[in-house]
Amino acid sequence: MSQDQLDARRQEILSGARACFARYGYEGATVRRLEEEIGLSRGAIFHHFRDKDSLFLAVAEDDVATMVETVARNGLVQVMRDLLDRAGETDVAGWLGTQLEVSRRLRTDAEFATRWAARSAAIASATRERLQRQHDAGALRDDVPVGVLAQFLELAYDGLVLHLADGRPVADLHRVLDVVEAAVRR
Amino acid sequence: MSQDQLDARRQEILSGARACFARYGYEGATVRRLEEEIGLSRGAIFHHFRDKDSLFLAVAEDDVATMVETVARNGLVQVMRDLLDRAGETDVAGWLGTQLEVSRRLRTDAEFATRWAARSAAIASATRERLQRQHDAGALRDDVPVGVLAQFLELAYDGLVLHLADGRPVADLHRVLDVVEAAVRR
Repeated sequence: MSQDQLDARRQEILSGARACFARYGYEGATVRRLEEEIGLSRGAIFHHFRDKDSLFLAVAEDDVATMVETVARNGLVQVMRDLLDRAGETDVAGWLGTQLEVSRRLRTDAEFATRWAARSAAIASATRERLQRQHDAGALRDDVPVGVLAQFLELAYDGLVLHLADGRPVADLHRVLDVVEAAVRR
Repeated sequence: MSQDQLDARRQEILSGARACFARYGYEGATVRRLEEEIGLSRGAIFHHFRDKDSLFLAVAEDDVATMVETVARNGLVQVMRDLLDRAGETDVAGWLGTQLEVSRRLRTDAEFATRWAARSAAIASATRERLQRQHDAGALRDDVPVGVLAQFLELAYDGLVLHLADGRPVADLHRVLDVVEAAVRR
């Protein structure tokens, strides 16, 4: 296989794994179900990923890469708006729920927890850098330190994740995000 | 047993059960561990509560009753401040984590999910009533509907629950709550 073919195979595995985790949750995504959803044998799957944990983290890291890119370009509020627009897609709530399920379980597994913590750190740091640039451009309120505003946006993001993972209605959340956004601006 | 004795016994069971769920999570809180933590036999425990699900929901409903009372008196922001002050207590993060763990699991159990949903509804309705009173007293901004402000506070509350359940540092969250509070006031 060429590098391109290897990369394509890897993406194919990640995409099937994401759907499988979203549908069955972390525990429920057995190797047999992963095989069915991905359409490859366990041998082929675990040739690319050490084990189920590694597969799960790779999907999560894929999310983080996309998210860090969007945060750097458009800010965390835009990430929230995108998430809200996609809330109707069945797999979005499932995938968020799976992440929560694992985030809880991880407290008993220090190594896994460290890898997981690196995700939040990357997002937090992208948020801070973006806010700092906006602050320097005079777009933000200046009576509250940028670090506090960043934590405020992260709190709103966490709240949105939990809300959507629970499958609760979107209701007026777009207007809520307007309030969130206005609260950090000058 | 007199009614007072029955009530006291019930409280004793709830308190031990809360500690056990906080320490071991929902799945990990086996009947044997519940017996040890509560200090009563399974016969005595399940004389008062039908099963583990009922026991768990009774603990959660106890929380809701306290929370609805505090929301009605002091608002949801005060509930968040209280939670933050108690974040250092080991069992707080554990108990919040257990609630998240179950909230995800519930999607496959419609009856349980309905009982669980009633919790959030009671809190949401207390938040709305309190905000409406504040609005009528002229304390709130009036360019955004009260219902949207209520959802904004609930989003912040959900974010705080997820943050603390993950055992992440409290950092500047008190200052973040100042931003949250200021965002709903006139």
